[in-house]
Parts: sequence; C-alpha cells; structure tokens
Amino acid sequence: MESISNKKTNPSLVLEKLQSLKFQNRPIPELQSPYDALVAVKFTGICGSDVHYWQRGSIGPFIVKQPLVLGHESSGIVTQIGSKVLSLQIGDRVALEPGVPCRRCTLCKAGTYNLCPEIAFAATPPYDGTLAKYYSLPEDLCYKLPDTVSLEEGALVEPLSVAVHLVRQGAVNPRSSVVVFGAGPVGLLCCAVARAFGAPKVIAVDIQPGRLEFARGFAATGTFLPAAGSDSSENAETLRQENALGLGADVVIDASGAEASIHTGIHVLRPGGTYVQGGMGRDEVRFPITAACTKELNVRGSFRYASGDYQLAIELIASGKVRAMELITAVVKFEDAERAFEDVKAGKGIKTLIAGVEDSK
Amino acid sequence: MESISNKKTNPSLVLEKLQSLKFQNRPIPELQSPYDALVAVKFTGICGSDVHYWQRGSIGPFIVKQPLVLGHESSGIVTQIGSKVLSLQIGDRVALEPGVPCRRCTLCKAGTYNLCPEIAFAATPPYDGTLAKYYSLPEDLCYKLPDTVSLEEGALVEPLSVAVHLVRQGAVNPRSSVVVFGAGPVGLLCCAVARAFGAPKVIAVDIQPGRLEFARGFAATGTFLPAAGSDSSENAETLRQENALGLGADVVIDASGAEASIHTGIHVLRPGGTYVQGGMGRDEVRFPITAACTKELNVRGSFRYASGDYQLAIELIASGKVRAMELITAVVKFEDAERAFEDVKAGKGIKTLIAGVEDSK
Amino acid sequence: MESISNKKTNPSLVLEKLQSLKFQNRPIPELQSPYDALVAVKFTGICGSDVHYWQRGSIGPFIVKQPLVLGHESSGIVTQIGSKVLSLQIGDRVALEPGVPCRRCTLCKAGTYNLCPEIAFAATPPYDGTLAKYYSLPEDLCYKLPDTVSLEEGALVEPLSVAVHLVRQGAVNPRSSVVVFGAGPVGLLCCAVARAFGAPKVIAVDIQPGRLEFARGFAATGTFLPAAGSDSSENAETLRQENALGLGADVVIDASGAEASIHTGIHVLRPGGTYVQGGMGRDEVRFPITAACTKELNVRGSFRYASGDYQLAIELIASGKVRAMELITAVVKFEDAERAFEDVKAGKGIKTLIAGVEDSK
Amino acid sequence: MESISNKKTNPSLVLEKLQSLKFQNRPIPELQSPYDALVAVKFTGICGSDVHYWQRGSIGPFIVKQPLVLGHESSGIVTQIGSKVLSLQIGDRVALEPGVPCRRCTLCKAGTYNLCPEIAFAATPPYDGTLAKYYSLPEDLCYKLPDTVSLEEGALVEPLSVAVHLVRQGAVNPRSSVVVFGAGPVGLLCCAVARAFGAPKVIAVDIQPGRLEFARGFAATGTFLPAAGSDSSENAETLRQENALGLGADVVIDASGAEASIHTGIHVLRPGGTYVQGGMGRDEVRFPITAACTKELNVRGSFRYASGDYQLAIELIASGKVRAMELITAVVKFEDAERAFEDVKAGKGIKTLIAGVEDSK
Repeated sequence: MESISNKKTNPSLVLEKLQSLKFQNRPIPELQSPYDALVAVKFTGICGSDVHYWQRGSIGPFIVKQPLVLGHESSGIVTQIGSKVLSLQIGDRVALEPGVPCRRCTLCKAGTYNLCPEIAFAATPPYDGTLAKYYSLPEDLCYKLPDTVSLEEGALVEPLSVAVHLVRQGAVNPRSSVVVFGAGPVGLLCCAVARAFGAPKVIAVDIQPGRLEFARGFAATGTFLPAAGSDSSENAETLRQENALGLGADVVIDASGAEASIHTGIHVLRPGGTYVQGGMGRDEVRFPITAACTKELNVRGSFRYASGDYQLAIELIASGKVRAMELITAVVKFEDAERAFEDVKAGKGIKTLIAGVEDSK
Repeated sequence: MESISNKKTNPSLVLEKLQSLKFQNRPIPELQSPYDALVAVKFTGICGSDVHYWQRGSIGPFIVKQPLVLGHESSGIVTQIGSKVLSLQIGDRVALEPGVPCRRCTLCKAGTYNLCPEIAFAATPPYDGTLAKYYSLPEDLCYKLPDTVSLEEGALVEPLSVAVHLVRQGAVNPRSSVVVFGAGPVGLLCCAVARAFGAPKVIAVDIQPGRLEFARGFAATGTFLPAAGSDSSENAETLRQENALGLGADVVIDASGAEASIHTGIHVLRPGGTYVQGGMGRDEVRFPITAACTKELNVRGSFRYASGDYQLAIELIASGKVRAMELITAVVKFEDAERAFEDVKAGKGIKTLIAGVEDSK
Repeated sequence: MESISNKKTNPSLVLEKLQSLKFQNRPIPELQSPYDALVAVKFTGICGSDVHYWQRGSIGPFIVKQPLVLGHESSGIVTQIGSKVLSLQIGDRVALEPGVPCRRCTLCKAGTYNLCPEIAFAATPPYDGTLAKYYSLPEDLCYKLPDTVSLEEGALVEPLSVAVHLVRQGAVNPRSSVVVFGAGPVGLLCCAVARAFGAPKVIAVDIQPGRLEFARGFAATGTFLPAAGSDSSENAETLRQENALGLGADVVIDASGAEASIHTGIHVLRPGGTYVQGGMGRDEVRFPITAACTKELNVRGSFRYASGDYQLAIELIASGKVRAMELITAVVKFEDAERAFEDVKAGKGIKTLIAGVEDSK
Repeated sequence: MESISNKKTNPSLVLEKLQSLKFQNRPIPELQSPYDALVAVKFTGICGSDVHYWQRGSIGPFIVKQPLVLGHESSGIVTQIGSKVLSLQIGDRVALEPGVPCRRCTLCKAGTYNLCPEIAFAATPPYDGTLAKYYSLPEDLCYKLPDTVSLEEGALVEPLSVAVHLVRQGAVNPRSSVVVFGAGPVGLLCCAVARAFGAPKVIAVDIQPGRLEFARGFAATGTFLPAAGSDSSENAETLRQENALGLGADVVIDASGAEASIHTGIHVLRPGGTYVQGGMGRDEVRFPITAACTKELNVRGSFRYASGDYQLAIELIASGKVRAMELITAVVKFEDAERAFEDVKAGKGIKTLIAGVEDSK
C-alpha cells in the first residue's frame, strides 16, 4: 500500500487482469480543456458492473483488454479548474457524471447524449474509472451539491440518475400505477422516484422477501413475491388482482433483467401500457411478443442517463423525496476496497461506498 | 347454393366448424340504433386471419365456439339508414370499418378505441363478419368513397388502414430510413404508406425473391433477401451496409411475425430507433432484449387501426399515393368463396377479393 | 318557494332572464338510454361562468336565449339506473362530469372529447345545468367517490378536474418550475395539482395579497405580487430573480385571463418553456408574439377536462394530496341560492356550495 | 475594391454603420479547434434580417454596435481542415450551418441547441457573418452536398432548414391540412416542405396575387387572397369554406409576421390544431387568446433550426422534392453586393445570391 501514500500521485484501484484488483500509483490527470475541472474523489459506490468486469472481464461488447481503473458512482471536491470554468470553484462539493459525450454527433445534438457512440464512460473499457484519488471531468458534468446533501449521498446520485431516467422513460405521472421488478439499489430507487413523480401505486416485485420488506419501508406502496411454481401469466394475474390494477398496470419498470420478470411485466400491463427495460441479464430472452403487439405496448429501453437527470436526482435527495442515505449499508476505506468488492459479490448489504484516498497519504 | 338466391334474406359465408365453410341464409341485420346504416356488401378481401380461423379455429384468446360468418375487409353500398344518420345517404359507396367499440371505457375515451376490451369486431369470435349480402354498422364507421375510388379499392381500405396505423406507430417522416419485414399485403402497403409519409429510404425484406421484385415495383426503394445460413446479427449488418443506413435504420416495421425478422429488425436499428410489431406469429419468440435496452429502442405494438386511419387510407388511394389496385390478383364470385379461400391458403396471388351477393339473387 | 316542496317534481334554479334567478318545478329527467343514471344532486359549487351568464347573459358564442338551469359543479347520490348500467348502484355517492360528448366525431374518437362540437354541457346554453333536485347522466360520467371523500368534496371535483387538465397540458413534472397566475379557486387548485405532479417550485401570482397568503398556506411554495407601476417585462424579471428561476420558468399556467398576467407569463418563461392558457378574460389581448417565437415557446389552450381527469381529481382528494375542503368557504341551502350568487358576485370567500334540495321537500 | 484582390486576405462585406456597406480586407480566420474547417464561401443568399440590420441597425435585442460582416445563407468549398476532422476533405462542397452553439448548456444537451443562450450566430451582433472570402466552422456544421446538388442550391439550404424546422414544429403529416401565411422565400419553402411531409392540402396566403401565382406553380395546392375590407374572422371563414377544411385547418404556419395573418391563422384552425409562428414583425400584436384557449390550440414558436434540419433540407433538394433553384431570381458578383442589397430592399425577385470572391482576386 505504499504507493497510495504518495501525495503527488494518483492512487487508483486497478483491475489488472481477470479477478485481480491492485492498487497503482498513476499520474494525476491533466485538464484536457479549459472547461475541465479536477476533482478529489471522496466516495464511490460499487456497482454491479464493476463486480462483473472484475469477475468476468466483459459486459456485452465491452471487453477489458488492459488494466482498468474501476468505479463510476462518485462524489468529490473540486481541486483545480480550467481557465474557462465559470460555474465551479475550488472547494465545491460535487457529484460526478462519469460519461463524456462527443457533443458533436447527431445523437448528442438530438438530446440523447447517453447514446453517443463515442462517449468516454468511466470504468467502461478502455476508459478508466473514478476509483482513484483524483478524476478529471468537464465542468458541466460536475454537479454542485446543496449544503444539505452530503458527499455520501453525492455518490448515490449516479444510481439515482439511472432510476430517474428509467422513470422518465416510463412517463410516470400521478395517474400511473407502476410495477417495479427487482428490489436492488436501482429498483428501490425507481420506486422512490416513481412516488416523487406522483404515482399513487408502486408495487415492488422480488424473489427475496427481505428485499420486499425493505422496499415497503423505503418507498413501495405494495409488494409482490412471485409464486415459485407459477408461470408468468399466472403471476401477472395474481399481481393484477391483489393490487387492484384494473385492466393492468400503466407502467412496468424492469430493474432485474430476469426472463421471468420480463414475462410477468409484459403480461401485467394494461392495453396501451409502457414497459421500460433497465436490468441487464442475458442478451436474449423468450419474450411474449404477441401480447406486446395486441396490447399495443410501448416497450422502451433505458440506458444510463441524459440531460437533466443528474440535476433532478440531486433535487430529489435535497428535498427529501428520495431518502438515498437509507441504501448505504457500508462505507469502507480506500485501502479496503477489495474486501468491499468481495462483500458486494457475496450479496451483502444494499450499497457499499468506498471512501476516497485520504489527503495525508 | 339455393339459399343464396333468396332476395329477402342474407346469404352468408359461415365457418360452421373447423375447416368447414358453408353458405347459410341468415336474417338481414336490423339497425341497432338510429345512428346505424345497413350496407349491401360489394367486395371483401380475404385476410390471413380468416384463413387461420378456418384452418385452426382460433387466434390467441379468440376461439370459434359457434358458427361464425367470416370476412372483415369490405366495401359496399348503403341501403338503409337510421333516423339520426346525417352523413350518409342511400346509395352511398362506402368502406366498412368492421369494429364497433363501446365508446364509453377509458381506452375509448383516451383515443385508443382499437384497444377497447368490448369492441365487437367482425369475424372475431363471437362476432359475425362481413361475408354476407348485408352488414350493419354505425354511420361513423362507414366511410364514403370519393368518385375516383372504386369499390374494389374500397375493400382494400381495411388492410391499408392496418398499414397506416403501423406507419403512424413508427412516427415515420421524411427523415426516416425504414425497413419493412414481410412483403405480403400488409408489408407492401406499409412500404407505400411509409413513402407517402415522406420516408426517403424504404427497404423491403422477405425470403421470397418474387415478393421482393414486386415490392420494388410497388413502393420499396430497396430490398433485402436474408442469407439463409447467416444469423440475424450478420444479416442486420449486411442489410445496414448495403443500404447505407449509417448507425442503423430509424424505423423497423415487422409485418411478418417471424422470429428471424424480429431479431434482424432489432439489430438493424440505430440507437434511439423505433420498432413496430405488426405481424403475428408465435406467441413468444427469442428476443434481443439487451440490444433493445442499451440502444434505448422504442418497441411498439400496433393493433388494427384507430381514429383517422380509415380517412387517411382512403385519401392515400384517392391521391394515387398508394396504388392499392395493384395488389388485387383475383376477384371471385360469392359462390366461389371457398375456392378463393383454398387459393389464399395455397399462397396464390397477393390479395383475393370475394364479390358481394348479386342483387338478382 | 312552494314549488320546491313537491316531492314528485324537480325543483330547479333557473336563470329566467338577464339578472333574474327563479325557482321552478321541472319534470324529473327521464333516462335517455339504458346506460344512463339519475342522480339526486347533493352539492353544487358556484362557478364564475354561472355568475357571468346571470349577469351578462352570454359567454363568447354561448348566448342564453331561453330560461336556463344553472350549475355544473355537482356531486350527488344515484337514485335510478338504466338497464345496462353495470358500474353503479342505487345509493352510490358520485361526482358528476357535466358534459356529454357525441362519442362519434373525429375529435371524440381521437381522445379529445372536451373539444366535441356537439357536447351537451350543463349550464351552457341551450343545455340545462345541475342546480336541480335531480340530474341525469351516462354512467361513465358519474364517478363513484371513495368512502373517504365527502359529497362536499365531490362538488369540487369539477374545478379540480379543470386544474388537473391545465397541469397536464403543461406537462408538469418533478423537473418543472411552475408559475400560476391568478389565485382564485382554479389557480389555487393548479398550485396543488402541480405539487402533486412533483413540481418542486410553484409560484402563485395575484394582485390581492390576501389571496397570496392563502395560496402559501394551501399549496404554493412561493408567491409574487406584481408591482403596480411596472410593466410586464420588469415584473417578469423580478419574478424570475426573486424565485431563482434560472433562464426562466419551465411552465406558466394562466388562471386569470388578465392581459398583464399573460404578458408577464410569456416573458418569465425560459426558452422552450410551456405556457397554458386557462383563464378567460377579453377575447383578444396584446401578446408578445416575437418572444414566443424566438424562445420557441409552447403556448397551449386548456378547455375543461377529458379522459382521466375526473378519476385523477378524485384520487388527489382521496390521497390527501389536494386538500380541496379548505377552499369551501360557505355552504348554503338550496332555497338561499340567489343570496349565494350575490355573495360570489361580490367576491366573498373562495368557493361557495349550494346544497341539494332536501328530500322532505 | 482593391482590397478584395488580395489573395492572402479575406475580403468581406461589412455593415460599417447604419445604412452603410463597405468592403474590407480582414484576416483569414484561424481554426479555433482541431475539429474546425475553413471554407471558401461560394454563394450567399440575402436574408431579410441582413437587410434589416443594414437599414435599421438592430433586430429585437440584437444591436449592431461595431462593424459587422453580413450574410449567413452560404455554401462553399473546404480549403483547410483541423487535425481531428474526419468527415471532411479539402475540396468538399458544403452547406454552412452558421450558428455555433456552446454544446454544454442544458438547452444544448436537451436537443435544442437553437435556443442556446451563447450560440455564436453569423451576422447576428457581435458575430461576423459569411459574406467574406473565407469562413470557419466546426466540421459538424459543414454539410457535404451530394453531387446532384449545386453550390447555388447549397446556399438555399439555410432558408430551407428554417422551413423544415417550421414544418416539424407543426408536426405536419399526411393527415394534415396546412395553411401557410406569407409567400416569400420561407413561406414558399414551407409549402414545399409540407408537401414533402405528405400534407395533401397546402394553402398559401398572401396579399400579393403574383406571389400566390408563383406559390401555385411551386408547391401550394391552393391559395387564398384575403379580402381587403374583411376582418380576420371573416377571412378565416371564407378560407375554411373555399378550401373545404371541415372543422378548420390542422396546421397553420405563419411566415409573415403580420397581425392580420396571425388572427386569421388562429381563427381558421380546427379545435386541437397547431399554429407555428415563424415570421417576425412587431414584438406585440393583438391576439385572439380566448379562441386559442377554448379550441385548445398548440401555438408554437419556431426559431432557426436544430438537430437534423440541415441534413433533411439537403435530402429534400437532392431528391427533387423541393425545387429550390426555382426561387433564385438573381446571382450577382461579390463586388455588386450592395446593389443586390438595394434590389432586395426594393422587393425585387424572390431570392438573390451573392457569389463568393473569385480565386484570382
């Protein structure tokens, strides 16, 4: 751990090769443009994708071919700003939006920069992540935290933005009955965000009763535990009846990626309802296409976050509408990062944060 | 065939039991409300669903349990009007929209009457179809044909309305590159409608080269014959490159229902693209859900037609933008209906019409 | 008042001629269709339009040419149902949606039945209103009240639905800063509904400080009293700065109809913002059209309510998100209706209800 | 004119002070970023705004305070590219999109870069325009012209993009009846674009019969000359009846900015119709706000162009759907620019182009 203690360098948690995490001293990033800022990272949440790269070495088309710094759910403090930065000052506490789009392609200019083919996204090969002492980003991707929002909460802005984007893809509003599949961090946050969008009925679905209990205390107005032996149509029908969903749910959000969830979700929707896919499991699943066709469903993918999602996520924490702190079940020192990864892999807790490298080191 | 010759009755083509068509004399329908009209049916196209009920006895949840008059693609001449009918006169030539919604449920009132759970749709059990001498409908579902549109064309307004609805679900416009899977009647009409919506590039895909040749002459700007041994990703990539689709197609319309088409369609779309499912094959297919998620696709079902589709279909024929007549490959007498069904089952021609019962009979 | 005491007839408050209200016994309405219900009216709110017809005899193209029963904001109890009514039972407590659309025109079928040219709307000439002992409506326009919603609240569902429709026209969501002009009943309800749609910032604007004080206690997060000598651009700028609206408000809702409000509203919007016109004052006003053009504003009219608005209004009361009872400042007996009209004309209170005719009479 | 002949410098047409145009030699622009290109301007159309700045010195908030190069409707040939430019080569023929947005603000990232408060737009103070020998732009704002599109047509891509944006704001489609007010260059192009979007009925309105005659030959399916003595309601009613617009037009596009047009446009719309304001006249006009409210109109501003508009404009020329060449009534040499400005001021012709500075000079 000697390397971490060097003040002038940038201690980083590196996925050196498959299933092998190491600490390395890397150079402190230089600002690439006068619009950039340098941030001392203070807290970083561990995401399922980090664990996946560590254990499997790839996600879909993204393959780790060289050592990669992990981490992309971070908050920090601004330590340097470029000459044209106007909105930030040194010392500002910020949440980091960890993907830099090209800003020039048709997808960026059409308002969908999350779909930019050239986006440089932290901890997605070949781009290094935020589990380092310092990380550099353009100023417009560093969001100042209000005084009432802690840096720990700041690290949750990233998964909360994922949830905000999912709920917006679902066009949730006060007329919507919503069913959320998967009660992990993103699913739980979707429940809370759907409530903040006014949804009067938000049903969480999971196969772990403990998670459902947490969901009820956190944000869901109801929960559903699928019957093990039932097929998805039966589960959908039970879910519909038990929760008085009339012709069916208005919106389904899948944050599980499980085939059974996807099936049940399609079947529980009312004609004209909206299904949003957020969870990623297998690349292909069996899918009830005829039901989607005859009910004229809107089935929408949701990928990361785009314009306005980060601001809204911060406001939802600041206003108390989303009590993000309740999701944090552990905060570990930077030096203990590997143990934290092991714990997440083992399914312990809901959200584990890794603290930043301490200044004295 | 004696029964057909009775002027006072209503000769009808009845699916008596599985795979058994019969002619029956049924009572002439009485107007159910002062807003109804009685129409002497003049031409009726045979739809794949008619053949399916005849051969299989059911489609999805709709099961033929008692004798059923087939047919729902019809034109005719108004022979009687209710006391409150203002927009029609006896003798008017009309296209028939063959589904009567309840007009009172939330789906009807929200502008999606095609999704009405209580819609009475012709030739969908338990509602009789239009293959009869007379058929009764509310006036607002009888659309007057302009002088320049023939009654034969009037029978094509129904499948053309299906295509109009599909293309509208896809939000096709002059910026859209469109790929249409399936070059049967609906797929062909989708190509023509997409062109009428201004799409500069409309690629028809089918596994029958003859159909693709017809598509090129009819409306497609290009065609694609999937390579037999290739998987859907490879076919999608070839399709994209050969047609200079850039990041991918803007809109895919599936009028085939085939799993291979669905896969190829999802893979050929650009990030943020729109996929519309119209074809109905198996209830479930394997589906590239992760691609739909990470590309943030909009996957929408399209079911029949709703507000405005019939009017637009008629205008597209009247203006010459859709040359519907070219699809008619046979017109047979009412008495020869069963043979026509056999021909359609055998895949002969594109669209076969059955003429109405002649007046002298 | 003798006429009101006849149990077998239908005592009604009639605008007999300009500025002249009378009680009349009219026949109890007969059900016009098997889908209709008869309702004993229990509470009716007085609307500005009722007072306007009484005092002026017309609103825009609607001119009172023959005696007209006033009232359209009503709740009641079902006393009779047609043979096909399934969703209601005698004794049900209901809110009345007082406009019966034709259900057949293109506007009805497109989901905009509030724009139906043939809608029969209560207390809009020549259609009689609900200030009578009994009133008849189709079942789908009688909305059952949950046990927790009183009949007094039921009479507020109508103006609340107006507010719901306005807020939906504005596409208000948790990212929206909203400015509402006019703090009368509809404006106040708009503030509450905007909050229920998640808006974090809802600024009420009025020229009466007392109304603004009420608005703050009721639902607004902030208020603005326009400076008397300032022009609308100056007021807009002050409003923007005092409320930290950044580039401007996201949504403006005008529930005042005043020219000064309209101007200020257009100027306070950010580029790309949405302006919704609900208040009706003069037919024409001076309008900052160039600002609307260069800021690419969406300026939308909002007229009454349509699909889903009544259900949502009831849910918002039932869930406690809109505390409608706080608006009721007086409830008078049916016999005292004229005095109630005088009070409303004089600007007393916020919302006055007239009780239904008592059964013993 | 000596200055223009210097090969190493950048001859420019400068609005030196009010009503005074001069030629100046200015430095050739240096590329500001590795993503920029330098273009030799070949043709530039004169826009009404150029004439306005010349004659009046300001448009709304934009005031000419120092010498300003005019011109923003240009095509040219790439003469230099930055080190990171991939999509362009020296010698490419391009149309220039003359506004460089900041790409970082919320409006840019939301897909509305035309509303960017910091956009640097050619010939809008304080940013110099394109009436120079050379002009520099980022590569993504230089659109390659297909071989079949001439550089003269390339100069028309700018006003055509304005028309494309207007028509897209109106959501014109094959179901739309469209009325376009003002038959100058933008109004004429709107007619053609509306046709390309499938509109079956496009009525041009102007007070000059000669312009209407041109409109009929160019793209309009019908025309309307307002009666001089009639008020706007009467004109709207005549327009509606003569053109069989049923309940009214679906879409109105104003490219005139005239109060009488705006009034007539609002009155001729059907309930639920869409009005798009493009023309800019006086900052404020009298406006029929109650009609807009009770008909629930969508009134939208349209400002310049944004994502996708330039590409579509080029495709519409390339496909022959918009015959832009027909609008060019004069092409003058760069040296004769002032005379061209005089002619445009005098209302001669439809669109005048100024050729670029010849290479030999």
